[in-house]
Amino acid sequence: MKTKIVEADYDAIKEDLHNLKNELLLVVVDSRVWQLYKKNFEDHFPANKKVHLYKALEGEGTKTVSEFERGCDFFLEKGIHRDAHIVAIGGGAVSDYAGFLASSLLRGLSWSVIPTTLLSMVDASIGGKTGLNSTHGKNLIGSFNLPQNVWLNPIFLETLPKDELQSGKGEIIKYAFLDEKIAKSIDSRKELKEIIRQCALKKEEIVNKDFKEQGERVCLNLGHTFGHALEFIYDLPHGVAVFWGMCLILKLFGKEDLLKDLRRYESALEADFGQAPWLNKTFPVAKIMELTSKDKKRKEGGLLELVLIEKTGTFVTQKMTLDDIEKLLEDKKDELRTIDF
Amino acid sequence: MKTKIVEADYDAIKEDLHNLKNELLLVVVDSRVWQLYKKNFEDHFPANKKVHLYKALEGEGTKTVSEFERGCDFFLEKGIHRDAHIVAIGGGAVSDYAGFLASSLLRGLSWSVIPTTLLSMVDASIGGKTGLNSTHGKNLIGSFNLPQNVWLNPIFLETLPKDELQSGKGEIIKYAFLDEKIAKSIDSRKELKEIIRQCALKKEEIVNKDFKEQGERVCLNLGHTFGHALEFIYDLPHGVAVFWGMCLILKLFGKEDLLKDLRRYESALEADFGQAPWLNKTFPVAKIMELTSKDKKRKEGGLLELVLIEKTGTFVTQKMTLDDIEKLLEDKKDELRTIDF
Repeated sequence: MKTKIVEADYDAIKEDLHNLKNELLLVVVDSRVWQLYKKNFEDHFPANKKVHLYKALEGEGTKTVSEFERGCDFFLEKGIHRDAHIVAIGGGAVSDYAGFLASSLLRGLSWSVIPTTLLSMVDASIGGKTGLNSTHGKNLIGSFNLPQNVWLNPIFLETLPKDELQSGKGEIIKYAFLDEKIAKSIDSRKELKEIIRQCALKKEEIVNKDFKEQGERVCLNLGHTFGHALEFIYDLPHGVAVFWGMCLILKLFGKEDLLKDLRRYESALEADFGQAPWLNKTFPVAKIMELTSKDKKRKEGGLLELVLIEKTGTFVTQKMTLDDIEKLLEDKKDELRTIDF
Repeated sequence: MKTKIVEADYDAIKEDLHNLKNELLLVVVDSRVWQLYKKNFEDHFPANKKVHLYKALEGEGTKTVSEFERGCDFFLEKGIHRDAHIVAIGGGAVSDYAGFLASSLLRGLSWSVIPTTLLSMVDASIGGKTGLNSTHGKNLIGSFNLPQNVWLNPIFLETLPKDELQSGKGEIIKYAFLDEKIAKSIDSRKELKEIIRQCALKKEEIVNKDFKEQGERVCLNLGHTFGHALEFIYDLPHGVAVFWGMCLILKLFGKEDLLKDLRRYESALEADFGQAPWLNKTFPVAKIMELTSKDKKRKEGGLLELVLIEKTGTFVTQKMTLDDIEKLLEDKKDELRTIDF
């Protein structure tokens, strides 16, 4: 079953919830979002449904196995049954968490998402990747489990902290490299909500062709292989790290011309990623390799599949050994240290 | 993808493992089974695979969220990747646990089972229901996740404790009511390993038609609605509880003639289920209702779908409210207390 992705205000969401065949809603909401929007949501839970509400820890804190157990216990204690439907409200952390609950409670419940961050609207809430973090890395425990609905309500962007907006824009720029139409929408400064819709539908299109990430879906990983390492090393918001991950990939593989696009999209989206976090510092090759070697997409033999951009709208993948990646980083580390970008 | 179910001795298992496309085997073995069969397994891990071995707590003890986390951490710490294949070795508890690990590690690994108990050979290892227990009930956390292979090796029955053999025979009798051919095999006292094969394939056939238990698969629940309650109340082995659950269903719905079959199959299988656990005691209506009301298969509005047998090979289902079930039990409780069976 595919995900239905629509732009929807509170009333439209209420109507869709009303029309769900399930009689019981298990709402999993980020506690910060609940604080801000409690009244709006309470006014829009449809009268024909019974609702159990679970307040998840803010952000990534909810994505632990012990919080997973707490969530399971919370709902199981209510005596839920398989005809329940989980509704995740929050950013990517909450949808990752709630989606894994949906996979695992009573061997699987249906679920939907109301993403409240830009990052989640264009990326995390779409495509059914759910996950918990482990001490050994992010999202190492999880499932592929498509939500039934994603309701895009741009109203949440009004209260979104600036660095979270920025983070979402990093992922939007990724889509610009993957899709000419999105690149044009950015360059022509279309409304953000229109760009969000295009990115969400682009992701859905890719995911529908390759749900389990055995082919084309890998393109969504653009900027992520190094991005994940940068996110950890410099404590960057995810999308900001993806931006710098794309910068690294373009630089390492000789795509200086596309580096200009990176800055142009940034400016058109009114974002400001500043300077490379490694500028004028020792480029952290060893730390990047240590983190990259734990990538869960690594194949046997240590091969990593890097996503490279040929030109806007055209990606290729390149399998490289960890040794070759390390060599490449070593060769370029002085150039990177003083990158003028 | 369907499960390949074959009778296989150690050498045949080794050959199949050798031929798996995965290069890394994550073996999850019941610690008691490992103690008994360590050498046999070590001699039959194929040389072309790397093996990580995880010893799970014996029996149901392994089916907790914290043991789930321990298992995840154990394998993640080794730096596993998606090209790993989990091999569960043990009874139903280990395959339930390992199957859920397979669902959840790195968003899903392939897996296979070597069932070592009779119950698991004919039931638990087949059909891809995985699960952990919660303080609120058994198997309330889990997934539907078909194993790639189930290797039936009757050699393990040689060391199986008598009450576990008995338990498996309870489930075998369930299949006799669902399938005339299996009923005949039992009546004609065919070899146990032939009966095991027939039961496993019967379950596979049903599961392939209705993986997510939205239709025919529900027939496998024969004897289980009350069986689960009896299992808990009288601390019975699972299959023994299913035997008495079937007894209750036949008695409550006026199938006295089939009650005779129940005893005939018991005797043909050289089992001995003794007397009803509630004989000459107060029939525990309230306790049964309390436990039954938590059944995860309960529908909204408290309806339970009971599986009834019309005649051998023909089942029907009947949806009943908890109130109606309670009334039925109340009406018959005196008769049940002195059941001559």
